Amino acid sequence: MIAKEHRILAIFSVIAIIALAVSGFMLYKANNTLVTAGPLGEIEADEADPAVWGIYYPHQYDSYLSNYENTEQPSHFETKPYMQIMYAGTGYAAEFNEPRGHLYTLDDIRAIDPNRYKTGAACNTCKSSEVPSLIERYGEDYYLMSFEEINSQITHPIACLDCHDPKTMDLRISRPALIEAFERQGKDITEASRQELRSLVCAQCHVTYYFQPETKKVTFPWDKGIKADEILSYFDDLGFDEWIHPDAGSPLVKPRHAEYEIFMGSTHQSAGLACADCHMPYVKVGNVKISSHQWTSPLNHIEQSCNTCHRQEADWLVDRVNDIQNKTKELQDIAGDVIVQAINELKIARETPGVDQGLLQQAQEMHRKGQWYLDYVIVTNGYGFHNPAESMNNIGKSIDYGHRSIQLAREAVEKAN
Amino acid sequence: MIAKEHRILAIFSVIAIIALAVSGFMLYKANNTLVTAGPLGEIEADEADPAVWGIYYPHQYDSYLSNYENTEQPSHFETKPYMQIMYAGTGYAAEFNEPRGHLYTLDDIRAIDPNRYKTGAACNTCKSSEVPSLIERYGEDYYLMSFEEINSQITHPIACLDCHDPKTMDLRISRPALIEAFERQGKDITEASRQELRSLVCAQCHVTYYFQPETKKVTFPWDKGIKADEILSYFDDLGFDEWIHPDAGSPLVKPRHAEYEIFMGSTHQSAGLACADCHMPYVKVGNVKISSHQWTSPLNHIEQSCNTCHRQEADWLVDRVNDIQNKTKELQDIAGDVIVQAINELKIARETPGVDQGLLQQAQEMHRKGQWYLDYVIVTNGYGFHNPAESMNNIGKSIDYGHRSIQLAREAVEKAN
Repeated sequence: MIAKEHRILAIFSVIAIIALAVSGFMLYKANNTLVTAGPLGEIEADEADPAVWGIYYPHQYDSYLSNYENTEQPSHFETKPYMQIMYAGTGYAAEFNEPRGHLYTLDDIRAIDPNRYKTGAACNTCKSSEVPSLIERYGEDYYLMSFEEINSQITHPIACLDCHDPKTMDLRISRPALIEAFERQGKDITEASRQELRSLVCAQCHVTYYFQPETKKVTFPWDKGIKADEILSYFDDLGFDEWIHPDAGSPLVKPRHAEYEIFMGSTHQSAGLACADCHMPYVKVGNVKISSHQWTSPLNHIEQSCNTCHRQEADWLVDRVNDIQNKTKELQDIAGDVIVQAINELKIARETPGVDQGLLQQAQEMHRKGQWYLDYVIVTNGYGFHNPAESMNNIGKSIDYGHRSIQLAREAVEKAN
Repeated sequence: MIAKEHRILAIFSVIAIIALAVSGFMLYKANNTLVTAGPLGEIEADEADPAVWGIYYPHQYDSYLSNYENTEQPSHFETKPYMQIMYAGTGYAAEFNEPRGHLYTLDDIRAIDPNRYKTGAACNTCKSSEVPSLIERYGEDYYLMSFEEINSQITHPIACLDCHDPKTMDLRISRPALIEAFERQGKDITEASRQELRSLVCAQCHVTYYFQPETKKVTFPWDKGIKADEILSYFDDLGFDEWIHPDAGSPLVKPRHAEYEIFMGSTHQSAGLACADCHMPYVKVGNVKISSHQWTSPLNHIEQSCNTCHRQEADWLVDRVNDIQNKTKELQDIAGDVIVQAINELKIARETPGVDQGLLQQAQEMHRKGQWYLDYVIVTNGYGFHNPAESMNNIGKSIDYGHRSIQLAREAVEKAN
């Protein structure tokens, strides 16, 4: 009798476990599965509208929309007035703000002075999820078109299609410049691991680049390596300059937000982390876990980002970040003052009749180097935190080159005949 | 019958457990207890001979003796030739080697040119465990005695008594300079926690210090704080200089191995670590665990030191350290060249008839600052690793001040009347 009761109990237990497993799996599927086909239909291969993707991925879409909350864009010049003097002769000197939420990319580029679009269509390249299709449509002509010709065709800012395959939701690279930079280095980006892609999708835009003089094509100057000295050496070899500083007369190159380059080789990166680990942490929404698509400073969600590895209190972690950033900012300000002085001395030298042209040119070359190394760190988000030792090292070189420029400019004046 | 057998078994089990516990405790006592009384007698309150302590603490003594293995002492000048030029006018320019094992303190100080003992008895202060007794015996006169008067009375190098109370084995501070520095800051060092003492016993010697001009007393320049800028400001307020550079004519101050000062506020220190956590890790000797008393780079025992917290492979950890140290060294070398140029320019300026004395003096002040910030990092062991951001920040300032000195020295020549 007892044996029979036991058997019945066992059978019911197995049934209950199977029922629980099936319903749990269904619940999981309902929340997490890649719903690429169903009553709602499929996401089209070139679907640039994030709202369409949002129907299938409401939690990710909600976190994406929260980028609208990040509205502040203080001017760089308030805290780093020397930047305005460094950028004289470029649109950057007119206005240069800290970045705000990725959803404002189109609003913001449309709000700036149209005179700054002189590079043309290429300025749209990192502003909209519709750009890859347009590049595909126009081919190399894309880069030669006017800013307006492309901008008038785009509606959506940075969005899902920029980083995801709409069919598989896999990460994928949509911007040619990154793919081609890898190719020129003899590397195939399609062989990148998922963890590498969690940085590389960001590296489509969060890198330094330049526009090739003839083709105006967006190009990553990585052929000799991705570090500040290697990139500058690449430009030097090409004899490339982006503009001539109106006061200093120096042929300059403008680094752009080299977050990827400076992050590579850092402690966090070499420990195996990708951009997304800190900037897109896993967050719980109801009973689902998603990668946050609100791109912001990890200091805004220390628990989700830092505390995954670091067990310390948030206050302690913030103190550590502040310590690095304050020491970086202090050195930046010293370098900024040096570069401004170099510009002033070069102006004096150029206005000096009979100035020694050989020394003047050497002084301008030193200015080019000094400004490059400082600018490289200043325009890279994070005030040095992405790679403290490298950032500080770069600024130290900037101080040295800047002073050598001053010295040579003065010698050029002394030797005036 | 069964119940009776169970009872007997239970009684024997309890007896066996008690027997095991007692023998285990005795074994533990035999290996670890502070044997301050017994057949061997007690360690005397002023027992400076480590061999006597070694009778009671053979494992610690063995690891202490292994400091003899660290015999290399390459010259700083081989890798940093600018140091020799910076130190002109002091004994440091004659010879300045990287440190070797603590057991060689007496051998090494006795081997150097006697002309370098001009500061007198104070040079013995960190060389022997017998010094605290001598300071107690002679009082303030100790510092005014000749080097030989004290050195002839000492036999043992750095040893147990320097950091330990022979009765309780507790850590304790034996050097007056540290106790007094705390007092002047309004702090009572006897209130330091054990973990603080695990750094403070090192801070008795691994700090920067100076000899007061009249009393020749060893003094820590910490009254305004323990950071490079605060210490320099302290010296500036006092109008203190240690020597006049023979070529530059600048009034200089010599920083000394400021490991403690630079470590304070670093990531490792603020995470709760003390010097001993990395430099004196727990090691197993047979069945006992002791703090290693072999003082060396943690890179020599990564598993015991770093892997206590960091789970990465040794190779990865070494790469991280190398990255920081190489970037620091690169910036050091730039700064070193700048300071050497400043010295050369100051020499030229001083030899220029009618040189502008006001500008020359300003140039010398800038040299003083520039050399201070560089020297502070160079002479601190670890090539910046004890506090990377602070070390790099200090070198960056050195580059700036050094160049400002060059600039002013040249202006002084131009304005010569």
